[in-house]
Amino acid sequence: MNKNIQPKLTLVGAGPGDPDLITVKGITALGLADAVLYDALVNPELLKYVPVHVPKIFVGKRNRKHEYTQDQINALIVDFAFTHGHVVRLKGGDPFVFGRGLEEIQYADAFNIETEVVPGISSSIGVAGLQKIPVTHRGLSESFWVITGTTTSGEISKDIEVAASTDATAVILMGVQKLKEITEVYKRAGKHELPVAIIQNGSLPSENLALGTVDTIVEIAENEKIGSPAVIILGEVVKLHPEFAVELIERELFLN
Amino acid sequence: MNKNIQPKLTLVGAGPGDPDLITVKGITALGLADAVLYDALVNPELLKYVPVHVPKIFVGKRNRKHEYTQDQINALIVDFAFTHGHVVRLKGGDPFVFGRGLEEIQYADAFNIETEVVPGISSSIGVAGLQKIPVTHRGLSESFWVITGTTTSGEISKDIEVAASTDATAVILMGVQKLKEITEVYKRAGKHELPVAIIQNGSLPSENLALGTVDTIVEIAENEKIGSPAVIILGEVVKLHPEFAVELIERELFLN
Repeated sequence: MNKNIQPKLTLVGAGPGDPDLITVKGITALGLADAVLYDALVNPELLKYVPVHVPKIFVGKRNRKHEYTQDQINALIVDFAFTHGHVVRLKGGDPFVFGRGLEEIQYADAFNIETEVVPGISSSIGVAGLQKIPVTHRGLSESFWVITGTTTSGEISKDIEVAASTDATAVILMGVQKLKEITEVYKRAGKHELPVAIIQNGSLPSENLALGTVDTIVEIAENEKIGSPAVIILGEVVKLHPEFAVELIERELFLN
Repeated sequence: MNKNIQPKLTLVGAGPGDPDLITVKGITALGLADAVLYDALVNPELLKYVPVHVPKIFVGKRNRKHEYTQDQINALIVDFAFTHGHVVRLKGGDPFVFGRGLEEIQYADAFNIETEVVPGISSSIGVAGLQKIPVTHRGLSESFWVITGTTTSGEISKDIEVAASTDATAVILMGVQKLKEITEVYKRAGKHELPVAIIQNGSLPSENLALGTVDTIVEIAENEKIGSPAVIILGEVVKLHPEFAVELIERELFLN
């Protein structure tokens, strides 16, 4: 190992997609990178903050299609840390919200590589907020629960069942493929009229929104051609969205 | 009203305290402000991004001590929007995580004032992450639940009881005053050994950390003189903190 090389790993949250939703601290880390490994959900515009000569490797990971396995990514991090120095691992959203960030920290730790974390705007809060849907609101919700729609086992998370029995705002990430199952859970809990929003590509120009209720959202999401990645928000707070009442009225007129 | 004035309200999340944890979009908004209203939990260093001649009003709100009531803040926003133009409302963390942000949006809406939201790093995710406690981790937690410790009624939130019965990571904000009650809830659920972390002033040089279990955390937090504002994290993920095992061993040695 070159003695001038200081191996280091910095996990940086890139935010939900809009390149201006990265933090100052994240940009500083990118400017000091000796190598950058970035994911599919990271806006490639952010690479402008990385010095030109620095290698920028796409390790794309989206849904279940991986360019590299997690083990391969871990190995790449350590390789680059020892051969280049400061590795910035740029991840969509926040590195610790279903980001497998700590697995990378632990792997680097095992090689005595210094590690640091720079949080990012998680789509779980930020994407809803950009649509003026507050995850909490006095009198409507005193908590919000962020749940993955795609568990390791492939089954729907049991937490969704519990969430359906509470007044918590439920925010489900990676759940579009399971939308029907999710609404079935809420129907069994008697929450047919509960407002639901689905936001695809939140914060990007291609953002796509579906608003409805537990009973109507599956059809509406199909009509709106909602795909991944998307955030599903179930809760009374969704009715605060400026278009929510309008959508319901238009739909009723259309159905009658 | 001066015809050159364009009334507008932008809610900006300032992040948990470290001034480098604001987003690029937040800084841009501050640079384009005609008036800034900021909270107690906002780092005043961020005001360097606001042009010098622009009024910067501290509307401090911390715990239950308010400089201004919410109604007064709402009125100030509208006043400044009509007399100055673009009002930036700079709020700690994210504006919609117990931030009463939508109340301000709704009030401005009623005066036909254009509104915009710039999300911020919420301490609920970011403060834990900076301490390398991931709110989710494969095999330990497939969800996290963010709950206020201080409800409108003054009672402890019922959501905490439900959270104690699940494997969700619970993140409780504004809960230090209720720490004993919170641990009692978890004890009743049989979760005596569940790891707990409390992080005061997360992301700031004055950051203060307490690590323990449901059974031990009240005493440890007292010894460490933990006060507000702080984030309480209850869940198996807390044991991933680099010092967690060490703290437990040292404590056991000390007790024996």
